[in-house]
Amino acid sequence: MKNFVTLDDISNDQIMALIKEAVHYKQTGTAPDFAGFYISNLFYENSTRTKLSFEMAEKKSGMQVIHFDVETSSVKKGETLYDTVRTLESIGVQAVVVRHGQERYYDELIGHVGIPVISGGDGCGDHPSQSLLDLVTIYEEFGTFEGLKVVIAGDILHSRVAHSNAKIMKRLGAELFFATPAYWQDASLREGEFVHLDDVIETADVVMLLRIQNERHAKSYNQDNFLDVYGLSKEREAKMKTEAIIMHPAPINRDVEIDGDLIESEKSRIFPQMNNGVYARMAILNYALKGE
Amino acid sequence: MKNFVTLDDISNDQIMALIKEAVHYKQTGTAPDFAGFYISNLFYENSTRTKLSFEMAEKKSGMQVIHFDVETSSVKKGETLYDTVRTLESIGVQAVVVRHGQERYYDELIGHVGIPVISGGDGCGDHPSQSLLDLVTIYEEFGTFEGLKVVIAGDILHSRVAHSNAKIMKRLGAELFFATPAYWQDASLREGEFVHLDDVIETADVVMLLRIQNERHAKSYNQDNFLDVYGLSKEREAKMKTEAIIMHPAPINRDVEIDGDLIESEKSRIFPQMNNGVYARMAILNYALKGE
Amino acid sequence: MKNFVTLDDISNDQIMALIKEAVHYKQTGTAPDFAGFYISNLFYENSTRTKLSFEMAEKKSGMQVIHFDVETSSVKKGETLYDTVRTLESIGVQAVVVRHGQERYYDELIGHVGIPVISGGDGCGDHPSQSLLDLVTIYEEFGTFEGLKVVIAGDILHSRVAHSNAKIMKRLGAELFFATPAYWQDASLREGEFVHLDDVIETADVVMLLRIQNERHAKSYNQDNFLDVYGLSKEREAKMKTEAIIMHPAPINRDVEIDGDLIESEKSRIFPQMNNGVYARMAILNYALKGE
Repeated sequence: MKNFVTLDDISNDQIMALIKEAVHYKQTGTAPDFAGFYISNLFYENSTRTKLSFEMAEKKSGMQVIHFDVETSSVKKGETLYDTVRTLESIGVQAVVVRHGQERYYDELIGHVGIPVISGGDGCGDHPSQSLLDLVTIYEEFGTFEGLKVVIAGDILHSRVAHSNAKIMKRLGAELFFATPAYWQDASLREGEFVHLDDVIETADVVMLLRIQNERHAKSYNQDNFLDVYGLSKEREAKMKTEAIIMHPAPINRDVEIDGDLIESEKSRIFPQMNNGVYARMAILNYALKGE
Repeated sequence: MKNFVTLDDISNDQIMALIKEAVHYKQTGTAPDFAGFYISNLFYENSTRTKLSFEMAEKKSGMQVIHFDVETSSVKKGETLYDTVRTLESIGVQAVVVRHGQERYYDELIGHVGIPVISGGDGCGDHPSQSLLDLVTIYEEFGTFEGLKVVIAGDILHSRVAHSNAKIMKRLGAELFFATPAYWQDASLREGEFVHLDDVIETADVVMLLRIQNERHAKSYNQDNFLDVYGLSKEREAKMKTEAIIMHPAPINRDVEIDGDLIESEKSRIFPQMNNGVYARMAILNYALKGE
Repeated sequence: MKNFVTLDDISNDQIMALIKEAVHYKQTGTAPDFAGFYISNLFYENSTRTKLSFEMAEKKSGMQVIHFDVETSSVKKGETLYDTVRTLESIGVQAVVVRHGQERYYDELIGHVGIPVISGGDGCGDHPSQSLLDLVTIYEEFGTFEGLKVVIAGDILHSRVAHSNAKIMKRLGAELFFATPAYWQDASLREGEFVHLDDVIETADVVMLLRIQNERHAKSYNQDNFLDVYGLSKEREAKMKTEAIIMHPAPINRDVEIDGDLIESEKSRIFPQMNNGVYARMAILNYALKGE
């Protein structure tokens, strides 16, 4: 049994193996076999893609999903996350997927509970399963990360994806750029250079947009002309290299981060990313539970 | 693959075939076989019967149901219905059942998404799966629609069922009457005559009651003596023909539209309607997905 | 078909048989076989353990669980519990598990609906499946109830568990004590003596703690030094007999009813209780449905 809560403690070789395993599931239409296995998904923050994608990966792997609804659980009576996970373990749940608003929520679990913890995102921290599906999408396209120019653009300050992805892509050999308004820059990000999107749009291989996370903002920002000044407008898209791709973790604020017409354009890998997410999560489940 | 969002674009022959298919499932205890098939139910409005009935039909047909909870989804982050359905499609969901408060919500989906849309009701518009189960119930009783006298009574203005049913029953040969207070009449309904329930209670074959939809009313109506003046009281029921039946789509406001004692009376088909709903929805799933 | 809503109407012999059946499932890793069987869990009050435990028992018994969400159901349109259960019965659900805030909610169901009602707790009344799992836990430890000294400590006034357990344990031969502040005593409890925890801590075989049910309190109580004065502090635990055990139905208010460090201490059976809950509920399902 292994936990999967951040890519930081997983070797480059292991990550490349996970990527290739996901691609294998996709190409062969297969899945790991966890028939008779019980899992539960604990989402303390709203989610569509991550939760549904894990559930699909679980069910295609033959697992039984024990339905956990935060809203009607004893969390409302003040129960701690630790007690909740120990409860699930006690009734026979063999792994948990957890999304929680608190950074490193898993510190109170790992080493103390007897089942693997798979993270669906922790606060403004990591989102390792999203990172893995992004890696799968890029690998599928380019076959390598070495020397790829990747620009991450948008609300970097509040994004789990920006932080997870910057670290792992740098490790795998990509060259990173961050394009964001001054008020969303994050000085702790040292994996790349802060630029304006216009500076790199013509040379980038991957333009990775982020969602503006209004629900995490303490104050509100004027987004009236965000698309024109900072976003992926049609004008900017026209300057991209032929083989370059557009990514976005979704949900999308249409016509804010990206012109709505580009979401399903030829360069866009936004919906294919979601498709890859299911295969990436199959690989993650297998990583966490193999040999159980 | 076919969408199922209104009966308006389905031929009489096809509708009769669906009715007979539903009766066949009921009589033989069989179901279509969709083992290994993934579906999701998106209910943007509260529901018990329709949602549970689809889920039962799906599970009895061997489908895996991917649980979609509007309350904890990215809809709360402003995601559009189109993006949500494309997301589900991307992760491998092969059909969606949608109930949504907006009339013709499906116009933004059909022709743009790659999986069939099955409607569980759109705003004050159609409710085609409810109509089909009503047809199954009437057909089971009378073996035909030709010449049947059907009175639809209650809150016609706010009812999906009234509109769907009026159109299809007229097409299939029934004679229609609408019994409703003046403030809930709907001039757009041209399939039958507006009458008082007393005018037709002695000759009607089918008395189809509607729920007063307080949650859709902009103003509140005095319902103190609704039962006596407009509803199915015991006095009115006593005047019905021996072989006539009582229907109601439920949920019921007991002692408002109908005297509570009549809900499970000999003439009532209210709970049998719900039972027929499962078989009707099996036929709908098969219609939408056959040959996939 | 049999209802399971209180232990009051079940004979001692039958209860002992249920306990032994649960132990059998646990020891052999087996479960009753209800493949192709449909059930639904209706939880009108928040719950983690009871709901999840029933779901696990159901799924391990091969049942299909039809997902019922109170929040998005027609309960919000004013539908009665009776109409809801009759609806579930009509669509093919073969048993319901219900938790409801109203005491004896099941009186409107039993004798009127055609499927068994299994109670997950009624208001401040009974909680028979919790009682059964408590019995399983004690029986597993001591092999009998005859002559065991059991002290129930905490918020007795608002506890379903206290009432259910007091009655059944007395019937099975245990000697009961209640340790609670004066303001939470309940004069209707005649199965044992009201004492201070200190009076019995050295002789008790079972120290059964209850959760302080803040959500059921009309006024708030000062809990600042509850642990020291009334709870299971480390000092009190040190006085317990070697073979004595600690129980708690959870969720736990850590450091209020019990010192947090004792929750997973050697004497504690708190998480094993949850594990036993799954086997107890398998026995309950089999009791209610055997021969269907």
